[in-house]
Amino acid sequence: MPVPPEFANLRVVLVDARNPLNIGAAARAMSNFGFLHLRVVNPYDVAFEGARSAVGAAEVLTHAEKFATVAEAVADCSLVVGTTAVGHRELQHTLQRLEAGAPLIRAHINTAPCALLFGSEKFGLSNRDLSHCHWLMNIPTREEHFSMNLGQAVAVCLYELIRDPNAQPKPEKGTPASAAEMERISETLLTALRASDYPKLTTSDAFQNAVRRLVRLMRFPFGDAEFFLGMLLQIVWKLGKKNSSEP
Amino acid sequence: MPVPPEFANLRVVLVDARNPLNIGAAARAMSNFGFLHLRVVNPYDVAFEGARSAVGAAEVLTHAEKFATVAEAVADCSLVVGTTAVGHRELQHTLQRLEAGAPLIRAHINTAPCALLFGSEKFGLSNRDLSHCHWLMNIPTREEHFSMNLGQAVAVCLYELIRDPNAQPKPEKGTPASAAEMERISETLLTALRASDYPKLTTSDAFQNAVRRLVRLMRFPFGDAEFFLGMLLQIVWKLGKKNSSEP
Repeated sequence: MPVPPEFANLRVVLVDARNPLNIGAAARAMSNFGFLHLRVVNPYDVAFEGARSAVGAAEVLTHAEKFATVAEAVADCSLVVGTTAVGHRELQHTLQRLEAGAPLIRAHINTAPCALLFGSEKFGLSNRDLSHCHWLMNIPTREEHFSMNLGQAVAVCLYELIRDPNAQPKPEKGTPASAAEMERISETLLTALRASDYPKLTTSDAFQNAVRRLVRLMRFPFGDAEFFLGMLLQIVWKLGKKNSSEP
Repeated sequence: MPVPPEFANLRVVLVDARNPLNIGAAARAMSNFGFLHLRVVNPYDVAFEGARSAVGAAEVLTHAEKFATVAEAVADCSLVVGTTAVGHRELQHTLQRLEAGAPLIRAHINTAPCALLFGSEKFGLSNRDLSHCHWLMNIPTREEHFSMNLGQAVAVCLYELIRDPNAQPKPEKGTPASAAEMERISETLLTALRASDYPKLTTSDAFQNAVRRLVRLMRFPFGDAEFFLGMLLQIVWKLGKKNSSEP
């Protein structure tokens, strides 16, 4: 995935993060998705230092900026979005579902910096943190278990920012088998069944049709029809040899 | 988020997972998004047991099933999808981007079980594991850093499965301030400036228009216009008192 230049306008801000594994995991997801500006507010120093060993997150963590307050961490941003697991807290802010909020963030970072805030693992963002936000965003989760792991929440939010709404399923690889190939498979399978004294084998059209239908509904999208036909031919050859050597 | 009944048709299968934190993280994301059927193939036993303490994942981990082989773990599934970080491996299978693959999985689980396979943190799925798959799916990531953390990859894939493509941004909370309220704010601000001996204050229309434009472009979506007007009125009152007590 090529990284659009406007991704440099997003600052991921971790407030009061306490677990070095989570800081490292957040940095790794940022690196995976091409958002390289990490800011941490008031981390336990040991946590922040511990995170620097996280797999594949070295670049993001090396350039991470440390701030004492949220106000300083978001100072250069003209849009500040807080993430929340909601629960039953009374919210003063407008709350957008991630799917609806992400396009607003994408539109903003086209021209100006945006801060995306994540709170501590235990308490989320405080009301004071939220007072710096223009609006809030939540990841839709099950009511019985709404609180996400910090690194996973960062990964899911950033994924929604990079996802391509126009991505279409690709057709299966290779050319599907032709009717002629399938017919040869049907014929060869019938020959093998005959040579094997298949008990229900009859020369009736009904049985032959059933075999043909079976083969037709088998799927050989990868040019594997020929591969399979080769196996059947080998089996037919061996059966013929066996049968001719029988007394 | 209410959980659709067909989510019970998805089995998340972790193959050769080695890190208990990752197994726990995968289970937690499953629980967050309402996919409760976890299967593990050949985990280090200590890893699997260690995972059982993961935050909020107890239900999923308690009911997790353990299998010796991929074949057994996917036996009841009529669609088997492998996840891959790609890299430069030559793939025999059709590879779908997550955004395009998820709707195919959603369509399948409406009527029948599907297995979604994740490989080990270090090596991903082996070619042998892949031979059990109908097609493969990848999360679009930066080429310079394509390999995701296992728990985050699970979270992102499941999020794509639960996301609502029709979610729309909500309008901001509350009624926006009316023109009459904004006009009162403009007038009160001008009064405060006059009482403060604001140096550039003139009675010219141009200055009053500038103040009105400034106020008009301030945004008070939450009924906060009245809140702000109250502050200005208090300031005007105090300024009036101060000015009248000056010699």
